[in-house]
Amino acid sequence: MTGELATLPDIEPSLLEITRTQDPKTPPPPSSLVFGHTFTDHMLAVPWHILEGWGAPKIQPYGPLSLPPSATVFHYAHCLFEGLKAYRDTSGKVTLFRPDMNMKRMNTTAERIAMPTFNGEAMVELLKQLVRLDKHWIPDQPGYSLYIRPTMIGTQSALGVAPPKEALLFVICSPVGPYYPQGFKPIALYGTTEYTRASPGGIGAYKLGANYAAGIAAQRAAAAKGYVQNLWLHGPEHYITEVGTMNAFVVFKHSDGTTELVTPPLDGIILPGVTRDSVLALARAHAAGTAPVPGLTDRLVVSERPVTMGEVKEAARTGTLVEFFGAGTAAVISPVDRIGYLGEDLRIPTGPDGMGPVSRPLWKYLTGIQTGSIAHPWSVVV
Amino acid sequence: MTGELATLPDIEPSLLEITRTQDPKTPPPPSSLVFGHTFTDHMLAVPWHILEGWGAPKIQPYGPLSLPPSATVFHYAHCLFEGLKAYRDTSGKVTLFRPDMNMKRMNTTAERIAMPTFNGEAMVELLKQLVRLDKHWIPDQPGYSLYIRPTMIGTQSALGVAPPKEALLFVICSPVGPYYPQGFKPIALYGTTEYTRASPGGIGAYKLGANYAAGIAAQRAAAAKGYVQNLWLHGPEHYITEVGTMNAFVVFKHSDGTTELVTPPLDGIILPGVTRDSVLALARAHAAGTAPVPGLTDRLVVSERPVTMGEVKEAARTGTLVEFFGAGTAAVISPVDRIGYLGEDLRIPTGPDGMGPVSRPLWKYLTGIQTGSIAHPWSVVV
Repeated sequence: MTGELATLPDIEPSLLEITRTQDPKTPPPPSSLVFGHTFTDHMLAVPWHILEGWGAPKIQPYGPLSLPPSATVFHYAHCLFEGLKAYRDTSGKVTLFRPDMNMKRMNTTAERIAMPTFNGEAMVELLKQLVRLDKHWIPDQPGYSLYIRPTMIGTQSALGVAPPKEALLFVICSPVGPYYPQGFKPIALYGTTEYTRASPGGIGAYKLGANYAAGIAAQRAAAAKGYVQNLWLHGPEHYITEVGTMNAFVVFKHSDGTTELVTPPLDGIILPGVTRDSVLALARAHAAGTAPVPGLTDRLVVSERPVTMGEVKEAARTGTLVEFFGAGTAAVISPVDRIGYLGEDLRIPTGPDGMGPVSRPLWKYLTGIQTGSIAHPWSVVV
Repeated sequence: MTGELATLPDIEPSLLEITRTQDPKTPPPPSSLVFGHTFTDHMLAVPWHILEGWGAPKIQPYGPLSLPPSATVFHYAHCLFEGLKAYRDTSGKVTLFRPDMNMKRMNTTAERIAMPTFNGEAMVELLKQLVRLDKHWIPDQPGYSLYIRPTMIGTQSALGVAPPKEALLFVICSPVGPYYPQGFKPIALYGTTEYTRASPGGIGAYKLGANYAAGIAAQRAAAAKGYVQNLWLHGPEHYITEVGTMNAFVVFKHSDGTTELVTPPLDGIILPGVTRDSVLALARAHAAGTAPVPGLTDRLVVSERPVTMGEVKEAARTGTLVEFFGAGTAAVISPVDRIGYLGEDLRIPTGPDGMGPVSRPLWKYLTGIQTGSIAHPWSVVV
């Protein structure tokens, strides 16, 4: 925050008040979990007021929010969120994966719609406290984790299209199972030309609720045509931007023997995904020889550059398309085997296990870090 | 709604349950009213469930909503709204202005984000019931009215980017004063080239909360530069699209002696405003000679066509720019006297009372209809 607001209190973990539930629930059997349907016993809440700054953080029993019907979140979509996971490794240690990245992005997003920003390190400390209290909700089985959902909403009770004068930052947690319980299942995408996700000068680079409500019609239209997700394109050139709610990656084989891993650049219409950043960083460290990823080709080139559907289509035709995948927190890597585009279906190669030669070793390495079998500074002990 | 959902119950006014407040408030003095800060004694609420359709409508005391922190409105911006006004004429009769238009647009908006639609006529009937109960909240002074805010939110308690399975349609009412209590005050606009409001394939044509959160940063940037509102432009041609949260109108004088009233066409990035439609209809009826608007030139041409900042700038230079104004429910007509554009300020003509030769008679006629001094089928008696 700038100017006079800078003197108002920031989020302060030492002020945390914890009220434990009097009615702890029994976590359901892991096999029964459906994403985002089950929540743990506690939630974190931090109120903000334009004249008072951030109030004392509270961990309290999970329960309903009471808001006036005039609260701005109901009218002008003053809402934004993050998603990250807590993992339990085989020794029982609980870790968060790159929580600083999520808090940094949450602040960037808040700033985009004139909502309050905060000390990200303080929030990571509070996330740890919340996860410590509810860590028995992380199922003790491979592939399971605790999905953490920090959310910020405008709670001002007066209508008027303006920055809200009151807000609430809250965090809820949901135990989740593996995204692909029966092994990888490549998905079919519909290259959407009727709808756009974002445009220059808009909000596509921010994790705002507004991007998600706006995307549902396109997802529904893709499903009606028999595809699992939609592939968001941009401009008359049909630049590839995102896959449903994931970042997009394409792999090409070139005549000089190199394999190129491509993802669109962060030009203002692409969400700066934490998984996207992690995939790029691991691939680049491998390409530079500083941290080899076992099983990955040693002729790897990593590119952040625009890529069009035309290029993908031509590569599919000539046999130089190696793979196409989405990357995001929920699924980590989501391989694609088919793209519906302008009335025809492009077939995308996948291996017998559903993955490809670049995504498979990257996925193994990245999930190894996340689940603690590979030591890495990205893993933050709770 | 289509398919099997068509057999589920729609909104049914005969099922209305009314619970009157036990603690009626005293309406504050009209002069103390600030837009959207005061609400009446009652609200209307209609729940929806994907398996049960619309439930029984309830009019109940104005009060907080209790929602789980996982409700989709907090995460994915499942929110949309309308705004219309109830007026009391000099004889005491209370009317709504074109409520059918608002209910039609609310359904179009709901459909765009896969939220439930409903019988608009049934909702108009329920709006009348609500206004009848709280009509003593309409201040008995010229220029005052009751602002009615129908709102729909996604209330499903499970996360997941998908059409919500539960929703709530609610309506709250706020007594409001004249937008310009001291007479018309033309506003200065900042022609925004850093931000965009909407793009083809997006959600600009719908009254979604998502459009409003996304617009606040641009409004704040305009204010920081000394302008009251921002003027939304589109594309490298800088097509004029909207004025803050209003539709845009420009008036040109042509060498053949005609005066052209122009507004951008409904091409998918413009909100189909009720005031926009009313201004166009009145101006066209005048131009056709079927319903003359007193004081308006008889050489009027009415156009829905694209108009660029280049055209406005050239007209300002050659003296053929007659006026520029915004049109919306809150202010009805909002004249503009200055536009900051690419580093220079364009001066826009305004008359001694702040209005121009086209907007003044149209505003008089339109507000005459709204307040009951001119009989018109657009006025619907409560």
